[in-house]
Amino acid sequence: MSGSKVMDFSKLDGLIPAVVQDETSNEVLMVGFMNDEAWALTQRTGYVTFFSRTRNKLWIKGETSGNRLAVRQMFVDCDDDTVLIKVAREGDGNVCHTGERSCFYRVIDKPKGLSPQVARNFSSANEETK
Amino acid sequence: MSGSKVMDFSKLDGLIPAVVQDETSNEVLMVGFMNDEAWALTQRTGYVTFFSRTRNKLWIKGETSGNRLAVRQMFVDCDDDTVLIKVAREGDGNVCHTGERSCFYRVIDKPKGLSPQVARNFSSANEETK
Repeated sequence: MSGSKVMDFSKLDGLIPAVVQDETSNEVLMVGFMNDEAWALTQRTGYVTFFSRTRNKLWIKGETSGNRLAVRQMFVDCDDDTVLIKVAREGDGNVCHTGERSCFYRVIDKPKGLSPQVARNFSSANEETK
Repeated sequence: MSGSKVMDFSKLDGLIPAVVQDETSNEVLMVGFMNDEAWALTQRTGYVTFFSRTRNKLWIKGETSGNRLAVRQMFVDCDDDTVLIKVAREGDGNVCHTGERSCFYRVIDKPKGLSPQVARNFSSANEETK
């Protein structure tokens, strides 16, 4: 189980953030945390496994729902404390427990008090997504 | 400064992870952490601001290099403890301190011991990116 060797779990009390991205659409689907064991299991099984901070236990994503996340590629960041995982979605493909495809389904309203330049950026970004 | 109201900073000692994604290419560029103040500043200024865990201070990304990250859209996840920020890259556009465009520039080698199905997935994913 050599997976843990490359990662630095020291900065966050034994955890690293893991960003899950759809390998095809490139949507960011969710962020979870892994401890050393979850990291090793993810590599060994090929399915994303987290450590649940609220339940204090390992958590194979989609184990109950069937919406598992099959690992396609894993990337480590420049200081070895975060992982990016490109996945294929299994089951109904809805990753969020709310039934949404991604956990990031709520956009934050345009902040007040931005500089005019930035306000324009926001405005133009919003227009592009209409 | 109402930004902090929507986020839950309690799970990670006052911090939330912030995933930065290129608004055009959808590349995940980096992950940083924000405290309440960094979060509010990001919204107020329109530029991504982190809290540096190693330096224990606020850190306007690109303040020195000029490679700032202009906020275009922000999304909050289902349990309010992580933010996804779509950005436009300023300066030379290289976000990582190593000079790479993304901090996630290193792919992790295909794990040993995967099930045949998953091993095939890995193999096929690698072929697609050649």
